[in-house]
Amino acid sequence: MTIAKKIKLSISQSSMIRKMFDEGIILKKKYGADKVYDFSLGNPNAEQPEEFKRELINLAAENIPLKHGYTPNAGYPETRQAIAQKINKTTGLKMDADHVIMSCGAGGALNVILKALLDPNDEVIVLKPFFVEYPFYIGNFDGIVKYAATKTDFSLDIEVIAEAISNNTKAIIINSPNNPTGKVYGEKEIAELSRMLLEKGRVLGKTIYLISDEPYAEIVFDGVTVPSVLKAYPNSIIAYSYSKTLSLPGERIGYIAVNPQIHEVGDLISALILCTRILGFVHAPALMQRIVARLQDVAVDVKVYQKKRDMLCDGLTKAGYQFEKPQGAFYLFVQSPIPDDVTFVQMLLKKNILVVPGSGFGGPGYFRIAYCVDDATIINSMDGFAEAIKECK
Amino acid sequence: MTIAKKIKLSISQSSMIRKMFDEGIILKKKYGADKVYDFSLGNPNAEQPEEFKRELINLAAENIPLKHGYTPNAGYPETRQAIAQKINKTTGLKMDADHVIMSCGAGGALNVILKALLDPNDEVIVLKPFFVEYPFYIGNFDGIVKYAATKTDFSLDIEVIAEAISNNTKAIIINSPNNPTGKVYGEKEIAELSRMLLEKGRVLGKTIYLISDEPYAEIVFDGVTVPSVLKAYPNSIIAYSYSKTLSLPGERIGYIAVNPQIHEVGDLISALILCTRILGFVHAPALMQRIVARLQDVAVDVKVYQKKRDMLCDGLTKAGYQFEKPQGAFYLFVQSPIPDDVTFVQMLLKKNILVVPGSGFGGPGYFRIAYCVDDATIINSMDGFAEAIKECK
Repeated sequence: MTIAKKIKLSISQSSMIRKMFDEGIILKKKYGADKVYDFSLGNPNAEQPEEFKRELINLAAENIPLKHGYTPNAGYPETRQAIAQKINKTTGLKMDADHVIMSCGAGGALNVILKALLDPNDEVIVLKPFFVEYPFYIGNFDGIVKYAATKTDFSLDIEVIAEAISNNTKAIIINSPNNPTGKVYGEKEIAELSRMLLEKGRVLGKTIYLISDEPYAEIVFDGVTVPSVLKAYPNSIIAYSYSKTLSLPGERIGYIAVNPQIHEVGDLISALILCTRILGFVHAPALMQRIVARLQDVAVDVKVYQKKRDMLCDGLTKAGYQFEKPQGAFYLFVQSPIPDDVTFVQMLLKKNILVVPGSGFGGPGYFRIAYCVDDATIINSMDGFAEAIKECK
Repeated sequence: MTIAKKIKLSISQSSMIRKMFDEGIILKKKYGADKVYDFSLGNPNAEQPEEFKRELINLAAENIPLKHGYTPNAGYPETRQAIAQKINKTTGLKMDADHVIMSCGAGGALNVILKALLDPNDEVIVLKPFFVEYPFYIGNFDGIVKYAATKTDFSLDIEVIAEAISNNTKAIIINSPNNPTGKVYGEKEIAELSRMLLEKGRVLGKTIYLISDEPYAEIVFDGVTVPSVLKAYPNSIIAYSYSKTLSLPGERIGYIAVNPQIHEVGDLISALILCTRILGFVHAPALMQRIVARLQDVAVDVKVYQKKRDMLCDGLTKAGYQFEKPQGAFYLFVQSPIPDDVTFVQMLLKKNILVVPGSGFGGPGYFRIAYCVDDATIINSMDGFAEAIKECK
């Protein structure tokens, strides 16, 4: 009868990952940080672009009235205008500043979107494997998670998604490039998804929102681009973050972009602004709003991550691991050599290698490697990976 | 069947304040910003302390590994340690870093605290007049707001609060210095509240949490200090913000401080950290966490606000207005010369004076002046205030 029952339950459930994290700290103390190969966290290690560093230094010294004052709940109009223009340039859409609401990263954006949309018991479709926070975000607003599996190569299974849709479906969340798989959904897949959602919406007489979680949109390799869901589907909303694009996840800056053609666009925008306010975000951090306005065409050097991906994929292939080579983000979702991924993760832990069991992402039989780490960590971990798979044979 | 019903209702209800805000924009366009006396927003206009400006410039240029990376969900240990030490120094308590969780301002802190505590239909006591966001924050987690009036001088009415407590009471929120009244609760009042809460808790066999919302703790005049609720009551939690202390509400930085003696302290801290994460805050902005760690003994020049208070109080007294002279924050809660405060606020609007009706704060018959504005705004508004009250006679 003290803390909330739901939260008490969540604490006990999340204790396994917590335990992994704590074991990592113990290992690092015991063996030294350079002897522990920590692939457990998606904390991007690429340098911030020089333009960012320069703008931060400039802005720190600039004299602007109410420089650190409250901004409008939706964010500075100039920042939102710059983002709308960027989106219009790449998509040919006609967004304006009103369709953009600044957020505390993609995590903040998703909570605001879901609070604006969900009545209790509304269903939200989540694709397996999924980012671990989605079920929490949906649960925050008493929504119900409906899982739909992706294909074995992690691409969209339109039929399976269609089967998961019911009269209570309010939205579907997609995440491309994907955490934990690195999968990028192609233009054809997105078009098929869009057709199916429109048809389902027509038959059920309701709007099904497509929420596209895109913090890794700029982290793509091999010349791949992420197709625009805004172009493909009218009832689409983007949750974006600069965390990975500019390598500053700690500064909590991102945005919500609403399709100008979305159902009841005015009410939805008002709802998103209200929810930004009443959830206690109030608005996104002011200084970072000013900086990102100036850096719409800037991104970290993606080749850094592509090189790491290639090193890792080559090494693991040689050692006998199996996986889909990803075209984006900085995650590799690898098949566990034994069916029980939690046990295999423990085996890797004995080699001082920290990864996360796929079970935590709704993908048992796999484990996730976050390769946004020093090259040395990748190189020096290879012996341990090779030994662990050998021990399974 | 599109956006959430509860949110749709909230949008329609909040449209009156929105309308005021829009009217202000129209007035400023029509007459020029210097001819409109905008006392509607608590956007602090004091300069940031020099120490803050210097640290921001220093930090912008510093080379720190993962400078803008994710921090722990609770925040940097060094920052939390610095805050715990500051609290210990002023209270004699024995807090450590674990009892402090960094937050996105006090708004973020309150949402995290309420999510951690509230089961559906738990009651939270709110004192009238109140900060307009409390009912939203409590409603976010399906809590029920129970209002309790303060005395005519806005001090605590312990008997009225005691009557509002039921078997469903989970917490009470107090806010001192107060928005909208500027009232500071004295040591004796806090001690009486504490005694009553302990006694009620004993009789009902439950914990009643005291949530103290303290963004104005440093904005006090006439040598007054804000008594420590942590010293007075074991089951106390502080929601703090640097928004006013360092004049940076736009940067969204504050903290939650948990009484080391609080009921089930370990579980509560875990719950607060989890809720920070799953509500999408993830953690407080990294750069600001580093800065406030270095500025624990720094605050804006409070004399600036005290001078404005005195100018405003003198002018309004001469014009015939009645009010309690406040000892903190930067608000004055003035009796409307006519019972209908909304009508009187409209009369002031005709003099190009923007204030907020007390009805919005659960204090009808009053209006709120936020005097964190240029001295010129105060001086030049005085004729309008004098004319408006004359028209009521």
